[in-house]
Amino acid sequence: MKSLKEMSKTELLGLRQEWQKEYENFQKKGLTLDMSRGKPSVEQINLSMEMMDILNSQTNLVGEQGIDCRNYGLLDGIEEAKRLLAEINEVAVENLILYGNSSLSIMYDMISRSFSHGITGNTPWHKLEKVKFLCPVPGYDRHFLITEYFGIEMICVPMTEKGPDMDLIESLVEEDEEIKGIWCVPKYSNPQGITYSDETVIRFANLKPAAKDFRIYWDNAYSIHHLYEEKQDFLLEILKECKKAGNPDIVFKFCSTSKVTFPGSGVAALAASTANLNDIKKQLVIQTIGPDKVNQLRHARFFANVDDVKRHMMKHAEIIRPKFEAVLSILDEHLSGLDAGTWIKPRGGYFISFDALPGCAKAIVKKAKEAGVVLTPAGATYPYGKDPEDKNIRIAPTFPSLDEMVNAAELFSLCVKLVSVEKYIAS
Amino acid sequence: MKSLKEMSKTELLGLRQEWQKEYENFQKKGLTLDMSRGKPSVEQINLSMEMMDILNSQTNLVGEQGIDCRNYGLLDGIEEAKRLLAEINEVAVENLILYGNSSLSIMYDMISRSFSHGITGNTPWHKLEKVKFLCPVPGYDRHFLITEYFGIEMICVPMTEKGPDMDLIESLVEEDEEIKGIWCVPKYSNPQGITYSDETVIRFANLKPAAKDFRIYWDNAYSIHHLYEEKQDFLLEILKECKKAGNPDIVFKFCSTSKVTFPGSGVAALAASTANLNDIKKQLVIQTIGPDKVNQLRHARFFANVDDVKRHMMKHAEIIRPKFEAVLSILDEHLSGLDAGTWIKPRGGYFISFDALPGCAKAIVKKAKEAGVVLTPAGATYPYGKDPEDKNIRIAPTFPSLDEMVNAAELFSLCVKLVSVEKYIAS
Repeated sequence: MKSLKEMSKTELLGLRQEWQKEYENFQKKGLTLDMSRGKPSVEQINLSMEMMDILNSQTNLVGEQGIDCRNYGLLDGIEEAKRLLAEINEVAVENLILYGNSSLSIMYDMISRSFSHGITGNTPWHKLEKVKFLCPVPGYDRHFLITEYFGIEMICVPMTEKGPDMDLIESLVEEDEEIKGIWCVPKYSNPQGITYSDETVIRFANLKPAAKDFRIYWDNAYSIHHLYEEKQDFLLEILKECKKAGNPDIVFKFCSTSKVTFPGSGVAALAASTANLNDIKKQLVIQTIGPDKVNQLRHARFFANVDDVKRHMMKHAEIIRPKFEAVLSILDEHLSGLDAGTWIKPRGGYFISFDALPGCAKAIVKKAKEAGVVLTPAGATYPYGKDPEDKNIRIAPTFPSLDEMVNAAELFSLCVKLVSVEKYIAS
Repeated sequence: MKSLKEMSKTELLGLRQEWQKEYENFQKKGLTLDMSRGKPSVEQINLSMEMMDILNSQTNLVGEQGIDCRNYGLLDGIEEAKRLLAEINEVAVENLILYGNSSLSIMYDMISRSFSHGITGNTPWHKLEKVKFLCPVPGYDRHFLITEYFGIEMICVPMTEKGPDMDLIESLVEEDEEIKGIWCVPKYSNPQGITYSDETVIRFANLKPAAKDFRIYWDNAYSIHHLYEEKQDFLLEILKECKKAGNPDIVFKFCSTSKVTFPGSGVAALAASTANLNDIKKQLVIQTIGPDKVNQLRHARFFANVDDVKRHMMKHAEIIRPKFEAVLSILDEHLSGLDAGTWIKPRGGYFISFDALPGCAKAIVKKAKEAGVVLTPAGATYPYGKDPEDKNIRIAPTFPSLDEMVNAAELFSLCVKLVSVEKYIAS
């Protein structure tokens, strides 16, 4: 199709009329679809149902260290589960501790403790006049909500196809002592599905921050969440690179089994240097008697090792890949060459990121909603929910069925076309 | 036996020689026993093994609200588990929210959030010059560790047989705006096993604190942890009393299934007024995607209702009662009338509290250790680990076997006698 940009006003008005009619037909269908939720489908969750048989009343629930997993004790997790999560997170067992069911809660905890007590002896953040965080955008709304909750000023850093803009990050971090951290989803990033390049990771590892308590909050949420067996992204392991760079304490690395087994009932982990972990354990011993060891054991016995996990993740891929491909092919079909927006084809992760024409994202989301399709609110991928150009929209293809996804993507494309043609008409 | 107080020096010296010999015989036995750990025995934990069969790969894991317990979502718990915990905690379902596996973590969270963000719009504690807490003593060391960690000044309030000294509490709380809370274990208190009287609870409910953000931290850890079917303590329900008193927001009430099913893998809950819960949910939505709903479902299907739980708790009682009774009868046998210390016979809970002669607790704990019996460190039941009179010792009879407990109690009594006779000789 010819680009909207090159069309005459008459042509544009004609298209608007045609698309408006199509849109009204969609409205008559009375759809109720949801493309907003980055959560696995029932079919995906069913892949782990056999995990529910791993432990029963006849099972010995003593872990390999001789610890009764049912009773109190063991602050940082049982050995066999630590080993599994360490393999998933690509770190040494001694650099990892286990938490409860959510890596988000670990991140909250890191910020909360830094606020109240500081990091490895540095001034607690509540005593500082100002604390700032860097936020690669578009990014994950729940990261931004944590830093916002603690009154931390967020500075946007644009993403490139190799990861966030490292020139900008280096210049900011190395000059400004108030900058205490950066939120990263380094592999199959949320929402763009971008994996940081080797150069990006190495530059992160070699940062020379002005603040001694600057940390990279490396949310490795999608490390094994590939869409393809063959076409997989590769991410350099950050702890190793930081150690090599003489910067071992600069990173906190998070992962969980949330989108591997059951999202609400998984095991989450933190990896960090010994100095960081020792600092954190001083709090942990006050905060908790330790996470659920029975659930740790359940996971460690369900997966013998990371190869088991990787095979399991390919079953996930088989379920969600058709949904991603359907959305992408519908976007291609309807929007290619139209100058109505751009998008990235990811090789993994949970999202497709769509950049509409500036000033159009909110209108598209609203229009989709009025025809029964819920999208993530426009702006959610930016700190404070404010996308300065009002253009980014996050599409989450995993949860709905393939049929639903096709319907929703068709409608989405139509809404993009309608809002875009109106913009061209008005300009 | 005649009181040591009334003996002549010669008699005391004779007894010391005799008891010293007995002690040396004990040392030769090479015991390695532990009376320090307030945790259930293996036999107790085995009572819940059938819970491991409740869910399997064929089970429908959709809760009664139609929510798939395996997936993300539902911040404050599934209805059927809320109902169960509400019954255990004796509150209305709408006044309760569920957390992860540990009520201690909820308490930590309450203090941490008050420190960083304040309670229901009041000034965050980190902005105040000083924050103080009242601590009934002897009390639970892990409570005191949380307030110590946040730099909160702790003021001891002596326990009486009806609960903490309410005259003192009223005069302090009603005058001092810096006092923001009090730690309470109101039923079968840790370590004394005392249950607060009706009058005590009503006076708590009617407190008129100077600080608007003063809260009673009501740790209902042992609400159903009776030792006897017939002889049970009764505790007035505090939320109801507070509401009656026009003071609905003054209390946070905690409970968990930790010593009901599996200590490390239970479900914990917080009960509070709607205003408090609404305030707390503003944080929860930032902090977590919600606790493990599959484990909630497991508990809700294992116990149909609170009567099931109460029957289950009687099985616990049958296992631990003989251990409590053995210790108490050994104390009676060896120490009764000797003026070497006092103790309370509890009807529930997890501990026996022993008050030695002033200045003797540390020496007794040390002597027991040198003969192979580990006791909770003297002082642990006081803020900062400092018992001003050095007299309280906490005995935890649940974990060891009955035989071990008998041996340990015999040695303990002997250590009390030896240290006491030395004190009388020196005085």
